[in-house]
Amino acid sequence: MKIAVLGTGSVGQTLAAKCADLGHHVVIGTRDPERLSDEFALFLDSHSAVKALNFSGAVSFGDLVINAVSGAHTLEALQLAGAENLSDKVLIDVANPLDFSKGMPPTLSVCNESSLAEEIQLAFPNVRVIKSLNTMTASLMVKPSLLDGDHQVFINGNSAAAKEVVQALLQEFGWKASNIVDLGDITASRGVEMYLPLWLRIYGAMGTALLNVRIVR
Amino acid sequence: MKIAVLGTGSVGQTLAAKCADLGHHVVIGTRDPERLSDEFALFLDSHSAVKALNFSGAVSFGDLVINAVSGAHTLEALQLAGAENLSDKVLIDVANPLDFSKGMPPTLSVCNESSLAEEIQLAFPNVRVIKSLNTMTASLMVKPSLLDGDHQVFINGNSAAAKEVVQALLQEFGWKASNIVDLGDITASRGVEMYLPLWLRIYGAMGTALLNVRIVR
Repeated sequence: MKIAVLGTGSVGQTLAAKCADLGHHVVIGTRDPERLSDEFALFLDSHSAVKALNFSGAVSFGDLVINAVSGAHTLEALQLAGAENLSDKVLIDVANPLDFSKGMPPTLSVCNESSLAEEIQLAFPNVRVIKSLNTMTASLMVKPSLLDGDHQVFINGNSAAAKEVVQALLQEFGWKASNIVDLGDITASRGVEMYLPLWLRIYGAMGTALLNVRIVR
Repeated sequence: MKIAVLGTGSVGQTLAAKCADLGHHVVIGTRDPERLSDEFALFLDSHSAVKALNFSGAVSFGDLVINAVSGAHTLEALQLAGAENLSDKVLIDVANPLDFSKGMPPTLSVCNESSLAEEIQLAFPNVRVIKSLNTMTASLMVKPSLLDGDHQVFINGNSAAAKEVVQALLQEFGWKASNIVDLGDITASRGVEMYLPLWLRIYGAMGTALLNVRIVR
């Protein structure tokens, strides 16, 4: 599959590297591929299968788009990518609308009556947005076996066909089908995004970001 | 211990009945004990150890106060209870600030930069507020063995001494000390309250409210 990962931070790098390892054709979208951070240039140097393009070029290349841009810059990045280039594509939104401007711990820039994923869906109605993977640290997204036993990843969005695409990719990442929990339509993104403040507190209490939840019932 | 449970709904009834079963002296606080719902009158009839008083009388009686009033009516109930009666007492806030006025699923009436428990603490600075138990259905609060294996209950608040009181009561309810997770000060209430939208979605996806999370790390 041709996959465009948007965002050059640790989440974008981790997802791009894993997708390339799986044999997918991967590009990373960034604002200006002529001006890369030293750290991202090192990443590209050690991952020769992954190329950097601008947002528009990356999204034009990809059949599947993964948004790993920070929540604060997501809508701007997608505008630069271009609505026409995004049209009809499946977009996995793994970002969280964290707002660090008011100090620590961060607040959410949107919540309660909407969510980042809903804002994306509203701004780009022809994109098939699926929210997933935002409830855990990057290394765990692509290697659930880092934790023992069962633990869950959530997905939600309006397109059943898009969910199938995402579920298949999650299984390639190592997620058991039985641990992928479908929470419903795109409005369920409020739930998984508003979980972040609790995740941050648990991280603080446990002293590790390598954690997830198992639903017991 | 003398315990005042505020609120006559299923959460208040469940907590009051369990505390009475444990041998505590329990009253339930309500707006007007002369005007009870048929359902609550039946509860009192079958739980002779539990008496109903008005909010002020209940809080005056209790050494420990449990707030199980709905989030929308919590602050009003506590005003009726009286700041002088609440002063210095430990108050366990199990309520959630759910707002059903905009349809289903409910939104939160306060979140992100504050929380219901923080609003209580701000309005009653001499009360030692501990948030706990709001992340699960009532039957599970007082009987964690309804689910197999380990799963967690969170506590947070500003008073270390009050936390010890609450941890002891949680252990009387059946919670293993190792499954009581201290998330820090009262501001962590944002985390556990903002988890509710996700809890509601998981409830919807699983078809049962008898669920909780186990933290895997």
